[in-house]
Amino acid sequence: MMQEATFNEKLQHRWSQAGMLCVGLDPDFTLIPEVLKGENSSIEDLLFAFNREIIDATADLVCAYKPNAAFYEAHGIAGAKALARTVAHIKEAYAEIPVILDAKRADIGNTNRGYVQAAFDELGADAITIHPYLGQEAVQPFLDRKDKGIIILVKTSNPGGGEFQDLPVGDSEEALYKTVARNVATSWNANGNCGVVVGATYPEELAAVRAIIGDMPMLIPGIGAQGGDLEKTIAAGKDSKGLGMIVSASRSILFASSGADFAEAARKAAASLASGIQAVR
Amino acid sequence: MMQEATFNEKLQHRWSQAGMLCVGLDPDFTLIPEVLKGENSSIEDLLFAFNREIIDATADLVCAYKPNAAFYEAHGIAGAKALARTVAHIKEAYAEIPVILDAKRADIGNTNRGYVQAAFDELGADAITIHPYLGQEAVQPFLDRKDKGIIILVKTSNPGGGEFQDLPVGDSEEALYKTVARNVATSWNANGNCGVVVGATYPEELAAVRAIIGDMPMLIPGIGAQGGDLEKTIAAGKDSKGLGMIVSASRSILFASSGADFAEAARKAAASLASGIQAVR
Repeated sequence: MMQEATFNEKLQHRWSQAGMLCVGLDPDFTLIPEVLKGENSSIEDLLFAFNREIIDATADLVCAYKPNAAFYEAHGIAGAKALARTVAHIKEAYAEIPVILDAKRADIGNTNRGYVQAAFDELGADAITIHPYLGQEAVQPFLDRKDKGIIILVKTSNPGGGEFQDLPVGDSEEALYKTVARNVATSWNANGNCGVVVGATYPEELAAVRAIIGDMPMLIPGIGAQGGDLEKTIAAGKDSKGLGMIVSASRSILFASSGADFAEAARKAAASLASGIQAVR
Repeated sequence: MMQEATFNEKLQHRWSQAGMLCVGLDPDFTLIPEVLKGENSSIEDLLFAFNREIIDATADLVCAYKPNAAFYEAHGIAGAKALARTVAHIKEAYAEIPVILDAKRADIGNTNRGYVQAAFDELGADAITIHPYLGQEAVQPFLDRKDKGIIILVKTSNPGGGEFQDLPVGDSEEALYKTVARNVATSWNANGNCGVVVGATYPEELAAVRAIIGDMPMLIPGIGAQGGDLEKTIAAGKDSKGLGMIVSASRSILFASSGADFAEAARKAAASLASGIQAVR
């Protein structure tokens, strides 16, 4: 059996083939076009049908897909099944595109083995997002998976993210998020499989984190509906090769139209954003 | 329809009726007695059967049950179904006992609505554990649920938990975990529905957090298999009424015996720990 490519290998390949756009597969039930609700009698079928159309319309334009677990868990078992079918569809039809499970997990060591099994072995995701608060020792079961991407929250896109992340810490009095980025870059990343999350809503902090982490991958949410500025984001976030970013948009692509043309509209929005990223990098 | 009791009301009632022991429902597949594996042909049935026997053997001894989501998610859809059946069993047979979903979630505001729906509306849990890293503004959808318990990670039980939690922050140079506890007590807890997690493995930090939070509930894992000392824990963690703690043990109760007498052995271990808590408080 041929060994599957690692997350990093897939990502590098897609960056060179398709650019740095990532589509967040966050099928907010209330925003899914009515036409699809008429055609699907179960939540499971509806969420999957919506995702499949979005994926099939955008696959040549993306470096990764990023389903956020909350939008599936909200619907219990039906949501879990829709998520599993979504990841399976990507792996069957577009095996070269990595799937980042945006689950923001982290527990103590032993317990994380359950989350590792859930995300990577049960679901088949290529990468996962995790919280840093419990420290490296706790999340080692994630970090031990050399084949997968472990993407750590550093500076989140929300307006109140600075409550703890911006606090000056230690003798250097650098902000906590910089210390997290530094520890990830110098210690957590021993297997070369880490990335960090920094919101597009904070371009200065993006540049500060890039200076700390070198060419490690950055997952950057907050473009589009959250209002992050594309040109500033790319200028601040790109690595030494003009790459290194997973620029994620969700609502602005998924719900570009509420009509029967939603997939076509999603493709146009994705193509426009992908060109925009390419133009300014 | 009579309104269901809030998490805090249920907890106060159970503290007075049964004491402060909480059993962590973490059905580690590899440790479940062989006798049950012979009797149950599916993972779903096995996990639920194990939990049901543990619950039925310990219900009069506990203030809460605390299933950790990782042990269920590890088994995909089958695990999700076993968790749903476990919570349903507690609510049907022991409606007065609150269920704390130990899921350690937290995303940005909008997205958290999915987790809120998952934990409280789909599953029917009474409380949830969450990460503090994204700040109050992000987790407001949890905090808005006045009827539920929102239990924030402050000082976790793992050996490496101090990597960020112990860093001195701001002008006061108090440890980050104390700042988290202080913000939770003074701001996040506006609805009186917050609690904090502090590991039994850190009795001095337990006392420091108790001094900050007054009589708010503390969820204290780390007794038993993780080696926390019971007497020190209770002395450090009790509130002004000698209560205020949810003292959680899992492996030392669930897997007290690997034989056919596992439920009886779990009851003995739980009764012994419950008496121990009562004796030293």
